[in-house]
Amino acid sequence: MITLSQEVSCLKRSVMRDLLSLATAPGILSLAGGLPATEMLPLDEYRRCLNYVLERDGARLLQYNPQHPGLRAWIAAYMHRRGVDCEPEHIFITSGAQQGLAILSRLLLDPGDTAVIEAATFTGIQQITAGRGAHVRTIPTDLATGADTDALEVIFKTQRPRFAVIIPDFHNPLGVSLSLEKRRRIAALATEYQIPVIEDDPYSPLRFEGDPLPPIKAFDRDGFIFYVGSFSKMFAPSARLGWIVAPPALLPKITVVRESMDLESSILTQTAVYEFLSNGLLEPHLERLNTENRRRRDTLMSALEMHFSGVASWTCPQGGLFVWMTLPDGVDTTAAFQDAIDRQVIYIPGAAFSIDGHFTNALRLNFSILPPDLIYTAVERLASVFNQEFVLS
Amino acid sequence: MITLSQEVSCLKRSVMRDLLSLATAPGILSLAGGLPATEMLPLDEYRRCLNYVLERDGARLLQYNPQHPGLRAWIAAYMHRRGVDCEPEHIFITSGAQQGLAILSRLLLDPGDTAVIEAATFTGIQQITAGRGAHVRTIPTDLATGADTDALEVIFKTQRPRFAVIIPDFHNPLGVSLSLEKRRRIAALATEYQIPVIEDDPYSPLRFEGDPLPPIKAFDRDGFIFYVGSFSKMFAPSARLGWIVAPPALLPKITVVRESMDLESSILTQTAVYEFLSNGLLEPHLERLNTENRRRRDTLMSALEMHFSGVASWTCPQGGLFVWMTLPDGVDTTAAFQDAIDRQVIYIPGAAFSIDGHFTNALRLNFSILPPDLIYTAVERLASVFNQEFVLS
Repeated sequence: MITLSQEVSCLKRSVMRDLLSLATAPGILSLAGGLPATEMLPLDEYRRCLNYVLERDGARLLQYNPQHPGLRAWIAAYMHRRGVDCEPEHIFITSGAQQGLAILSRLLLDPGDTAVIEAATFTGIQQITAGRGAHVRTIPTDLATGADTDALEVIFKTQRPRFAVIIPDFHNPLGVSLSLEKRRRIAALATEYQIPVIEDDPYSPLRFEGDPLPPIKAFDRDGFIFYVGSFSKMFAPSARLGWIVAPPALLPKITVVRESMDLESSILTQTAVYEFLSNGLLEPHLERLNTENRRRRDTLMSALEMHFSGVASWTCPQGGLFVWMTLPDGVDTTAAFQDAIDRQVIYIPGAAFSIDGHFTNALRLNFSILPPDLIYTAVERLASVFNQEFVLS
Repeated sequence: MITLSQEVSCLKRSVMRDLLSLATAPGILSLAGGLPATEMLPLDEYRRCLNYVLERDGARLLQYNPQHPGLRAWIAAYMHRRGVDCEPEHIFITSGAQQGLAILSRLLLDPGDTAVIEAATFTGIQQITAGRGAHVRTIPTDLATGADTDALEVIFKTQRPRFAVIIPDFHNPLGVSLSLEKRRRIAALATEYQIPVIEDDPYSPLRFEGDPLPPIKAFDRDGFIFYVGSFSKMFAPSARLGWIVAPPALLPKITVVRESMDLESSILTQTAVYEFLSNGLLEPHLERLNTENRRRRDTLMSALEMHFSGVASWTCPQGGLFVWMTLPDGVDTTAAFQDAIDRQVIYIPGAAFSIDGHFTNALRLNFSILPPDLIYTAVERLASVFNQEFVLS
């Protein structure tokens, strides 16, 4: 039965959905989305892979078949390259990162239990905590170094939560990445307090600047870090594929929870995506995607500098999809939203990322979807929205 | 957190999975599966549809995009032809029937609530009731006319359950279909007691004999029947597509629950399946599939007659995938299973379909997977298993 906290979460997600549906309205420029640009998706390569595996394997790709062994092995090797001590037996293939989060929440959390999330976080994480009737405690996220590990330790010590969820790279909505030191510390805290940490990492492959950092999971020695990955951003959303890295002893339970939700992922898609990956097509795709994303981030930075310098502050991510902008106190980005629609630009109001109504003067901007010239126009429109409320420099 | 009842459900599903994995072992003949024969799946037609829509629509089929409007409309028209007063606004596309069941359970049931299921029922239904911590009440299912509606009324009256789940056509595992009269009665009971009934119907399109019956939903005037459909058996399991028919007012809540589970179904798959359906390719596919399934059912009937006549009884389904066989009291089909493996034949022991250890002398036989000559051999082996326990005629 849907409870009050779930209702709140429902409402928020449905508002988000309404906002995002505007993104396809004619004339509207969207800085609101959380997806790669459609024209950058690897259409031709994937189509060739689909046809190749259908030709090779035939109708058995239309049949039931839960976990593709080659895909599990590829993911294990990929995680291993990122510093995670990991075999195929640690990998469970999911229908995107959201299902990974949902399965782990179902496994670890009952309604009324306590969970820790970042104060500004992705709505999908709100849904698998507050949305499942948990008591939610929040920790702040530093815009330079990521989640506040001191605050995390205090809650671990005093509240004994069931788990914490942390986004390590190119945070949604903040754009920040966790420092190396904090990654180590989170893994150590999980072990010290024997409290699981779910590492929600759909964005790390989208790095276009700076050195890659190992995931928190790379510092996990006792199996308290549950890593959740996704092919949605690094490959294509419609593949609906992601994965969990978890102790092999838990995989039977994870399997049962997942089977109760939707049985399994498409073996046709798993096989075709494995073909794409094992043919070395991911690396050139990411190279193209990230080069373009960097250009678009640079464009957004320069447009913000031009229109909001001295008035607002914003993060400058080294990858991912999002920039977080903070306007002066008193500005209400939710209230301004209708005006933004009228001026044909949309963003996600900061309050959508808070379970308790914070960040009303902030907003999330996407830089991956619009081509550079339209990013300029969009920010111009954005400036005209907030221009009414305070004098821009 | 996984509770005791969930553990039981876990265990059962994992036993089932182990059994089914034997199905691919060399030499083993499987009467255990619950799927269409691989060689009958519409490979070439679907591949053409995939390529056509990728050519036409391009990379936007790799993007996010939740519910395909054409597919919703096709499903609504299909349900309408089956007697359901239904518009596209009533249809919610899911990742198979299991997700439809999981969403409705999440929406209607909290742990500790009471739910009604048939005493012999599909493990996926056990998982979304007992597996979610519900108190489960069971009703018997008559092997000629389906679920016992008098028993249902008693539980509705005395226990006020949150919902009942009924399989209307070609029951898994029993093979029986609900009589027309009982369909009307169930719809009337749902309205009278204002208790939702979930109608789990993956098999009705697999009718090869007798007149089609309208679903229970066709008799629903007040929105208490939630219909769950699936493309897994009528088209292909790896499409991972199914649907819910529900009151439009509930679709926002259904959407939120589904988004929290795995966001959405692949738009590429939805578009390609819609292409298949709207080009009239389903009807000839079902014609071929059902003709062959009928032949295989006839073969199984004649093999059972040859080897088990006068000793066991079994259902004779007019469609679907399954036959239910009951052996004399005292025969233990779970205990006999290892012997069956040794003799290279497998089935599903009846106890797997009971939440409380009944049906130990029964078993479920599939007739869709093996070609006719191998069905004869499989039943011969089955007879040799049970031959040790009693004298066959």
